[in-house]
Amino acid sequence: MLIKILTIFPEMFSGPLTSSILKRAQEQGLLKVEIVNIREFSEDRHLKVDDYPFGGGAGMVMKPEPFFRCLEALKPAPGARVILLTPQGKTFNQGMARELAEAEELILICGHYEGIDERVRTLVTDEISLGDFILTGGEIAAMAIVDCVGRLIPGVVGDPFSLKEESFNNGLLEYPQYTRPRLFRGMEVPGVLLSGNHREIERWRRAQAVRKTFLRRPDLLGEVSWDEEDMKTVNSILTGEAPPKAWK
Amino acid sequence: MLIKILTIFPEMFSGPLTSSILKRAQEQGLLKVEIVNIREFSEDRHLKVDDYPFGGGAGMVMKPEPFFRCLEALKPAPGARVILLTPQGKTFNQGMARELAEAEELILICGHYEGIDERVRTLVTDEISLGDFILTGGEIAAMAIVDCVGRLIPGVVGDPFSLKEESFNNGLLEYPQYTRPRLFRGMEVPGVLLSGNHREIERWRRAQAVRKTFLRRPDLLGEVSWDEEDMKTVNSILTGEAPPKAWK
Repeated sequence: MLIKILTIFPEMFSGPLTSSILKRAQEQGLLKVEIVNIREFSEDRHLKVDDYPFGGGAGMVMKPEPFFRCLEALKPAPGARVILLTPQGKTFNQGMARELAEAEELILICGHYEGIDERVRTLVTDEISLGDFILTGGEIAAMAIVDCVGRLIPGVVGDPFSLKEESFNNGLLEYPQYTRPRLFRGMEVPGVLLSGNHREIERWRRAQAVRKTFLRRPDLLGEVSWDEEDMKTVNSILTGEAPPKAWK
Repeated sequence: MLIKILTIFPEMFSGPLTSSILKRAQEQGLLKVEIVNIREFSEDRHLKVDDYPFGGGAGMVMKPEPFFRCLEALKPAPGARVILLTPQGKTFNQGMARELAEAEELILICGHYEGIDERVRTLVTDEISLGDFILTGGEIAAMAIVDCVGRLIPGVVGDPFSLKEESFNNGLLEYPQYTRPRLFRGMEVPGVLLSGNHREIERWRRAQAVRKTFLRRPDLLGEVSWDEEDMKTVNSILTGEAPPKAWK
């Protein structure tokens, strides 16, 4: 997969894309990320990329020309997704990441300043927002998308089981995880996890995941396929009954 | 404000925190960001910070000791918010950012691998998720929070009007922005913005913001205080009437 990121702050990407899994993915040739400096496509002799808004108001607006000239130079492949990162876009989520992971080319456009000339929107196929909060620019949102989508490219995450078990992939929050030591500062690992009884461990983990999701993110539950035991877990929370023994 | 970020990938932060507004904020002494390498607090002689999960399963789990030792060494100030970045946390939003901007000290803990030993949760005051998607670790989420909260520290963004007019600050998506040239590749700037009539410009922008929010993010509308003209805007969309002339 080829990802091109259009930005006026190329130096922001030096660290995030050269660490951890994304570094490996690029070394293995599974992913190529190119950082493109929009400023180089300015027609202005001072390489200016912003200007005052028509109609007045605080702040500066990014000019349309550099984006148009840049995209013309990049010649996106047919089927490439051209994505503007903006608080006005669709809120990014794992489903969207899975969809984007199927594209061969992504072009991520980072807006900045107070806004971007509305005509730039005619260039894009998608508008995506990272969430309901305001960032200085689209750069950090682009990093999140590269990380999240990059992990879904086959071969990037070593063990495909890892992908499957992670939060949101079965619609539930993740169950609690424990590692050594078994007793740490007075806190013990739940006995069931040491039992070696895989069926019981599975049941406990599922109940814990259902419990956590019900208490913290009930909005996610609409998407989950329930079984009878899940209903019992929810019921025991609602009726305030003691949780099954294994929960201690 | 003092922000400490606990991570096993300190090199990821070199670019993002030294650009743009955050760079200026740190130079002006309004914000101090310290990157703390959790690995240095490992008791293991190979500086290992992860181990296999009790009960089996794919992937590794981050061990509790380095986090406990690290937080003990950092001695958070009373009132400091100790935040674990995790998909299981509360979804980050601008209201949360405003609340965090009032703290004097934030400690952001970046989880990694498949998870983090559950006992680490006893150390934190908050658990925050950037959104319903899976990242390799909490690092990019930490960058987003530093950027978003940093902008809200008085003095960091030059013109406080900029903060007020941005998306989400009045509960609506932003109205379209335009800058020069007035005619660009056959696309003209809407006439009202060139009229010099500030009342009309305000009306047009409000109607456009209401329109965009209604069409793209109706879930945000519950929080907005409406006036009669806003109702007309929504009504004209619902009834398919031609939009007011100024919209062209």
